[in-house]
Amino acid sequence: MCSRPEPREPLRRVAVVGGTHGNEMSGVYLARHWLRAPGELRRPSFSAVPVLANPAATAACRRYVDCDLNRTFTSAFLTARAHPDDPYEVTRARELNQLLGPKASGQAFDFVLDLHNTTASMGTCLIAESAHNVFAMHLCRHLQLQSPELPCRVFLYQLPGEESYSVSSVAKNGLGLELGPQPQGVLRADLLIRMRALVAAALDFIQLFNQGTAFPAFEMEAYRKVSSVNFPRTEAGELAGMVHPQLQDRDFEPLRPGAPVFQTFSGKDVLYEGEATATPCSSMRPPTTRRALPSSRRRSSRSLCLPCPAGPRPAPAPAPAPAP
Amino acid sequence: MCSRPEPREPLRRVAVVGGTHGNEMSGVYLARHWLRAPGELRRPSFSAVPVLANPAATAACRRYVDCDLNRTFTSAFLTARAHPDDPYEVTRARELNQLLGPKASGQAFDFVLDLHNTTASMGTCLIAESAHNVFAMHLCRHLQLQSPELPCRVFLYQLPGEESYSVSSVAKNGLGLELGPQPQGVLRADLLIRMRALVAAALDFIQLFNQGTAFPAFEMEAYRKVSSVNFPRTEAGELAGMVHPQLQDRDFEPLRPGAPVFQTFSGKDVLYEGEATATPCSSMRPPTTRRALPSSRRRSSRSLCLPCPAGPRPAPAPAPAPAP
Repeated sequence: MCSRPEPREPLRRVAVVGGTHGNEMSGVYLARHWLRAPGELRRPSFSAVPVLANPAATAACRRYVDCDLNRTFTSAFLTARAHPDDPYEVTRARELNQLLGPKASGQAFDFVLDLHNTTASMGTCLIAESAHNVFAMHLCRHLQLQSPELPCRVFLYQLPGEESYSVSSVAKNGLGLELGPQPQGVLRADLLIRMRALVAAALDFIQLFNQGTAFPAFEMEAYRKVSSVNFPRTEAGELAGMVHPQLQDRDFEPLRPGAPVFQTFSGKDVLYEGEATATPCSSMRPPTTRRALPSSRRRSSRSLCLPCPAGPRPAPAPAPAPAP
Repeated sequence: MCSRPEPREPLRRVAVVGGTHGNEMSGVYLARHWLRAPGELRRPSFSAVPVLANPAATAACRRYVDCDLNRTFTSAFLTARAHPDDPYEVTRARELNQLLGPKASGQAFDFVLDLHNTTASMGTCLIAESAHNVFAMHLCRHLQLQSPELPCRVFLYQLPGEESYSVSSVAKNGLGLELGPQPQGVLRADLLIRMRALVAAALDFIQLFNQGTAFPAFEMEAYRKVSSVNFPRTEAGELAGMVHPQLQDRDFEPLRPGAPVFQTFSGKDVLYEGEATATPCSSMRPPTTRRALPSSRRRSSRSLCLPCPAGPRPAPAPAPAPAP
């Protein structure tokens, strides 16, 4: 489940998805702009399609209406019989599966790039399923090399044995871009400009691949989740503290056992109880309107040094298609 | 309507209000904490009461449920006959008017301190009705002197002839604290600690006043709104641009005529058309779930140099009350 077949043909059917979470505004407004003016998404060998994934949540400026759309692309949701009481996002996932999939089928889109923001100070984070996705790993490498002065970390989200569930998992290959910090519902020019440049570079990479460019093997650092740390709570379940001032905004910096993680409202420090140094990064699930938490938990991750083989190449180097 | 009678008696009935907007988390979590542990709000001559102003919006982690609570404390809303179809916040405003008022009556609370956050880079902003509120102006001066190294600006929100409408207007005197930047629904330790220190200093000031301390005359800089600038939009009314990268995060820095204010998604700069240099600060009305805008407008303000007379003093210096 972790591995995707490497593409052997040029990628012609590519989508750029914004608004999977309706209050992450860089992708929402880029998708809306490209729906009016799609020229920026054209390359000689393909034209990427802009998609606004969750129109109802976007209209309400909320992460979601009924449930997190980006967790609903599982076979259980996609193949169940439709029912009038289905959550809005389950119905919408089936529509997107028709548009971009069907998932795991030969008719699925070749690539989906999914645009997200976070309130955490994570800079630019590239979210891939697993390191076995050689095409996505080479794309990550390409994006990192575009602006080597900016941190651009790779996070592998899929746990061993877990079924993929994100919108990009519907396509044959995919990648998520997570840029922060940006408040939900707010549009920052610097992040929109950065996201736009990353999308352009990703489409350029696909064009290079389609042209038959060779991508040599490399090693890269990546992160994956090792544990979650719950916020302190009162006996009644209310939030009793916050991320410690010494840890605030220090995503991806080393966290040693015994270092403070939270500070309670009564002034007590809560220390990290892990056995080894970890790399904290804020949960990529920001507070939802349902749970009313400032953040449900902190996520600890650990970096890995990954070897990545030489990139796949399309079998026959195709002649560039005429620009549409 | 702009002027409040100066207090001549010690202030005994004081409230500290959080959660007037349900997704501004510093005040929400401080109010919840103080409802469990109110000792921090005690002073020798009074005990301030913590109030969670909008419990339904706080539970939903939204600015409001039906309408902005902090615009509903007008005589039209407060005196109209109650109706089952009234917006939630109108009903809640009447409850708070019973608890803290009635507005403009002798039974009203002596002072309400109302705690807010903003997503804009406004630092610490003290929001008073008008410079005629001599008590509030002296409190602002006191708060500015606590941490002179931190910007702590005074914003006068009431327009000439306008009826007061905020929760603090229910009391005989009041002040709003607006701290940012903090994403809505997110709790930052640095801002919670800063807000807590400002609340403590405000209660200390009231204690000093109650003890008969003399407050000499002074001059202070303050800001008030001169105009609003609307975001660029498409013909269909959709947002067509964002705050210009050169202006982003530059609240309270001078904006000269001809300087860029917005950048459209097509890359065009929109210039400031005012006739004189102004001081931009982000609208204090962040995006609502109803309007789904990243920010409805930018606000231009101008600084004033205000003389403030010596502070009022209670007529008889009271003996300190025993601590409850």
